Amino acid sequence: MSVLEEVVRTIRTPDPAIAAHTQALLNGKTKPRASLGRLEEVACRIAAIRGSPTPPLPEKAVVVMAADHGVAAEGVSAYPQEVTRQMLSNFASGGAAINVLARHAGARVVVVDMGTIEPPPSAPGILSRRIGPGTRNLAREPAMSRAEALAALDVGIEIARELTGGGVTLLGIGDMGIGNTTSSSALAASWTGAPVEEVTGRGTGVGDEGWGRKVAVVRRALEVNRPHPWDPLDALAKLGGFEIAGLAGVVLGAAACRVPVVLDGFITGVAALAAVRLAPAAADALLASHRSVEPGHRIVLEALGLRPLLDLELRLGEGTGAALAMGLVDAALRILCEMATFDSAGVSDSGA
Amino acid sequence: MSVLEEVVRTIRTPDPAIAAHTQALLNGKTKPRASLGRLEEVACRIAAIRGSPTPPLPEKAVVVMAADHGVAAEGVSAYPQEVTRQMLSNFASGGAAINVLARHAGARVVVVDMGTIEPPPSAPGILSRRIGPGTRNLAREPAMSRAEALAALDVGIEIARELTGGGVTLLGIGDMGIGNTTSSSALAASWTGAPVEEVTGRGTGVGDEGWGRKVAVVRRALEVNRPHPWDPLDALAKLGGFEIAGLAGVVLGAAACRVPVVLDGFITGVAALAAVRLAPAAADALLASHRSVEPGHRIVLEALGLRPLLDLELRLGEGTGAALAMGLVDAALRILCEMATFDSAGVSDSGA
Repeated sequence: MSVLEEVVRTIRTPDPAIAAHTQALLNGKTKPRASLGRLEEVACRIAAIRGSPTPPLPEKAVVVMAADHGVAAEGVSAYPQEVTRQMLSNFASGGAAINVLARHAGARVVVVDMGTIEPPPSAPGILSRRIGPGTRNLAREPAMSRAEALAALDVGIEIARELTGGGVTLLGIGDMGIGNTTSSSALAASWTGAPVEEVTGRGTGVGDEGWGRKVAVVRRALEVNRPHPWDPLDALAKLGGFEIAGLAGVVLGAAACRVPVVLDGFITGVAALAAVRLAPAAADALLASHRSVEPGHRIVLEALGLRPLLDLELRLGEGTGAALAMGLVDAALRILCEMATFDSAGVSDSGA
Repeated sequence: MSVLEEVVRTIRTPDPAIAAHTQALLNGKTKPRASLGRLEEVACRIAAIRGSPTPPLPEKAVVVMAADHGVAAEGVSAYPQEVTRQMLSNFASGGAAINVLARHAGARVVVVDMGTIEPPPSAPGILSRRIGPGTRNLAREPAMSRAEALAALDVGIEIARELTGGGVTLLGIGDMGIGNTTSSSALAASWTGAPVEEVTGRGTGVGDEGWGRKVAVVRRALEVNRPHPWDPLDALAKLGGFEIAGLAGVVLGAAACRVPVVLDGFITGVAALAAVRLAPAAADALLASHRSVEPGHRIVLEALGLRPLLDLELRLGEGTGAALAMGLVDAALRILCEMATFDSAGVSDSGA
């Protein structure tokens, strides 16, 4: 049995009785029932995933995977392709937005080179797990072979296992890759059936002409590659990217270890959708951090059955939204473990 | 000149050139322009209020004011009135939701007794600034005299001055008072002209019958008291509460000291509206933390010209939403001071 198969078989739907137990504990706290709204929902969800009605504050990490995309040759991005590699170095030296926001959340950042065109200068902060020097151009041919997609999934599974084995109990995921919104739009169209124009946005900031080009490229990618309708690996290989497949692996590995995964924006949403196509119960291990400006994100979140916690008009990626939402997850769990009860505080309870 | 008059004359609209300077600094950071969305907006707004393009991380406090309301006699709340006093003790001993969330945000909690029916047992954590043993029943007569409303405003101004004088540079405000959503609905209807049913909600959780009673009580309050249409002090005195007037004073005092104020839900929104009726430029010192479940909150935020950062279905009060949003304010300011620039990180900038 392959690593992937083994992991997919391990993933289980969490026990709803644990969430109910957590809600009962929250109902005893000195506040009107359910008055902390979605914060209470988050506490219950984390409890169910972790398998404990009162999970301790999590040890947190954000896995940021970067790779290059052959489709960048079609002029679908506002930035030159070398930016992927440059940003890997920026992540390693701690100067990117994700470094700042992860520090703020008390999360460590795990930076993974899944395959930029040129390898970045080796730095202690970068895990080198290169599948190749960027994918091929999905507008002309399959972006990856099936073997490459499987290798990328395995990398993600392995990283999730190592981190959870080392004590991490809350994972965020983030992406970096010039061209990767184009790849994600193609995957989203393929998996949700939504019209290409509705899942294609402006990425890092292309204008109207660039947007029209992106839509045409995504259409061409779907025609050229004809992804198989019920074989998720087929679409993932043909239309995906090394980092997207790797992040799907992180989701699967974490779900198998009962560790919740906080998604970021559109690209990580598509990676999660890949994971859920492979193992539907993995959806129960997910939390949506924010609703991105990318129009396809809404459609992907609906397909995942998730409601985001934040709506801050972010469109950066890197895991920035995930890091911001981790602060809310901590807040929810602190409410659960630190608040007084009606009994302990001598406050009259109306039961309302 | 009274304290209130002096403060109202001091409040100035922030200089938009400072916000523009901050945005220019953010545009040099290693990310697509404006890709951190509303987080960038928050950084610019705080900078303008503070009068510095790169304000340091704020020293934070949440002022929670509590008082009783004579209108509770009309059966408008799901909780007995003694809960106001019990919760004051809970705030003082650190067990309430606001204590947990303020700790999480790194903010201190300043608890003020503005006038519960019975004074709470004296505790080092409670500032006693009692205007009286609760307001009178606004459904039958004015809740406060004009002198009481002015005294409550002065208390708030004084507390804001002391805190900002002691180094606090970001204030949150929160409320506690059984019956205070009824008072807030009456004020919101009076100041916005919105229909009573649209600004009246379920508070801590009354059922359909209780809601009908609340609507009738608010209507009666408006008929009995006939608040003066352009004298904000008149409505505040007749329909308000000691804590609502006190929090309006906190907003005015903070705005005069160029310290931003993070609002919480419906009651603090109404308090801010009182402040803005007295000094329109105070609106520029405000940040809306979240959109509450209370239907009147949306209408009040529109009247204030504010968009909330969070939409978590909170309906607790106490400043809980304000404390949660303080984490986002810190994140925004850390982005501004800690992120690398395209130049410093050697990343290619497309200008997109």
